[in-house]
Amino acid sequence: MDKPEEVKTLYWQNNRLFLLDQRLLPEEVKYRVCETCPEVVSAICEMSVRGAPAIGIAAAYGMAIAALEGEEKGLSGKLLRSFLSDCSNSLFQSRPTAVNLSWALERINQWLEINSGASPEEISNGLKQEADKIFAEDLENNRQIGSYGSELISREASILTHCNAGALATGGYGTALGVIRAAFDQGKKLHVFVDETRPLLQGSRLTAFEMCQEKIPATLVTDNCAGYLMGEGKIDLVIVGADRIAGNGDAANKIGTYSLAVLASYHEIPFYIAAPLSTIDLSISSGKDIIIEERERVEVTQINNHVVAPEQINVFNPAFDVTPAALITAIITEKGIVHQPNREKLKQLFTIRKD
Amino acid sequence: MDKPEEVKTLYWQNNRLFLLDQRLLPEEVKYRVCETCPEVVSAICEMSVRGAPAIGIAAAYGMAIAALEGEEKGLSGKLLRSFLSDCSNSLFQSRPTAVNLSWALERINQWLEINSGASPEEISNGLKQEADKIFAEDLENNRQIGSYGSELISREASILTHCNAGALATGGYGTALGVIRAAFDQGKKLHVFVDETRPLLQGSRLTAFEMCQEKIPATLVTDNCAGYLMGEGKIDLVIVGADRIAGNGDAANKIGTYSLAVLASYHEIPFYIAAPLSTIDLSISSGKDIIIEERERVEVTQINNHVVAPEQINVFNPAFDVTPAALITAIITEKGIVHQPNREKLKQLFTIRKD
Repeated sequence: MDKPEEVKTLYWQNNRLFLLDQRLLPEEVKYRVCETCPEVVSAICEMSVRGAPAIGIAAAYGMAIAALEGEEKGLSGKLLRSFLSDCSNSLFQSRPTAVNLSWALERINQWLEINSGASPEEISNGLKQEADKIFAEDLENNRQIGSYGSELISREASILTHCNAGALATGGYGTALGVIRAAFDQGKKLHVFVDETRPLLQGSRLTAFEMCQEKIPATLVTDNCAGYLMGEGKIDLVIVGADRIAGNGDAANKIGTYSLAVLASYHEIPFYIAAPLSTIDLSISSGKDIIIEERERVEVTQINNHVVAPEQINVFNPAFDVTPAALITAIITEKGIVHQPNREKLKQLFTIRKD
Repeated sequence: MDKPEEVKTLYWQNNRLFLLDQRLLPEEVKYRVCETCPEVVSAICEMSVRGAPAIGIAAAYGMAIAALEGEEKGLSGKLLRSFLSDCSNSLFQSRPTAVNLSWALERINQWLEINSGASPEEISNGLKQEADKIFAEDLENNRQIGSYGSELISREASILTHCNAGALATGGYGTALGVIRAAFDQGKKLHVFVDETRPLLQGSRLTAFEMCQEKIPATLVTDNCAGYLMGEGKIDLVIVGADRIAGNGDAANKIGTYSLAVLASYHEIPFYIAAPLSTIDLSISSGKDIIIEERERVEVTQINNHVVAPEQINVFNPAFDVTPAALITAIITEKGIVHQPNREKLKQLFTIRKD
């Protein structure tokens, strides 16, 4: 893939991974060039790339880079396998909550297992091709999610979204924003309210940026406005992405999502989650077992290096929360819509063959 | 009053009003010196001084300054009255939601009416004394609120608060934080969770600052954490201030308060409002009639002059929302606690004589 004319979450060129440094948006469109696996790990840890599906794709390419590194170091056989295993572990540990990360790494590791006799060159080619596939499938899944999800949106709708579950959080198009894009492309009259999403402001920096780029009518609000907007009858539905969905339908997503789900329930507003099957973790029985990442205090106490809180104050900064399935009206996947999600319905999804 | 050793919301010295510039906290403790009424108006508009009771006190001193200005200009009789009336109007228009502003101005204007034959010098002395009274009464009211409110707090309690209803929002001590201070001083084991309160971060900048100064154990969180904390059973009660309470008990307070009240109700956690009687506006029958101030987009799109959102995005930035009385467990006033507030109970408050 060549350097894109439009803004892309990531692309591959001359054996290097270019990751859009999303921390600099909307002020600067700059790509972070990764030539080694630790560079990809850092980019994920530091959230230059973020969003569950995008993290999965980046990790897959991280393994392709690791294979190239190994080849260059002259590693082969067991030594190469061991090197790749270490790389996979460090990628795995870069962020704990999004399951797409481990899902993508498992797929890469499966490829390695199946192709146990492959040469170093075959491995680097193979992993690159597998990463390309994961990337392409994600984009295709998002379009399917958009197509299914748009059925839930009326001809005129005012939509609240939180964080960024858009093109920037995925291989492109987006999950929650994919649904909004699809409905908008169908000519529906939409207005999107964008939660700014503290502490890292993915709403104001990324979702607002995407809405402006696509010319979808949108209004930015602080996270504190959600209840007020709902109380005033200004929100018809809420749609967000997810970082990990437990077997019973409980969904981990950006901190603040649970508050929105409670508020939506109180105001009898539908609350939708849009996510690919790679986000569903059947191995986890309920949301209680999802590990919630706690991030550094500085994300809350400083904004762009400017101190906004006293030095001595304690800070609690969880990156995610869990919304119980009972508060989720439906989960929108590439295999269809799961209304009132539960274990049985989610299991069935995995048996559906794609068209 | 002389220049204070400790940080004060405001003080008077040599016929000038010194207002702590709260926009600079916690980094800088700097006072804004007001020698004219328009300077006080600007300080209120720009939120150097904020918090409903503090705005009322500042406006009262603004009128004392206006009287000095008038005296200096050589105005007397009708001309002085007309000048003071213009000053009162511009102070009245500086912020629309907090009723304490108009309450304090009414008290000053009543003094002027009663003392219609007073000389310019008598007027400037009289208004200064009336402002001093309003100031002293507010402090006394806060201590009473603290004393009553502390009865609602168990020996061990984890408390969530929003915005700043502390010493900095009042003449001193605080309303919601006054209750926390009183309970803490009684030796109760408290932990305060402080909502950062976007967009202007009064929680991280002001409440966190007050908690650190008083050494009350506290943890700063983003506004998005409230639901998560409640869901995890980490909050025993919510307590906030108010900017205007309608006759039926509906209460306007900082944007995000309504969301907290809904969340508290869902989690069956008591939700308290602490406010002096000067915040209760019996002339307004319900919260629907409370004017909600909308503030500039730049408060959301820029943080400390750093751009965090695309230029083209629309912004909706209401400063307050209204929590219906039905979601309020009790209103704590200097005349006692009003459980399940309604019109009858609030009216009765005004007939209670102070001890």
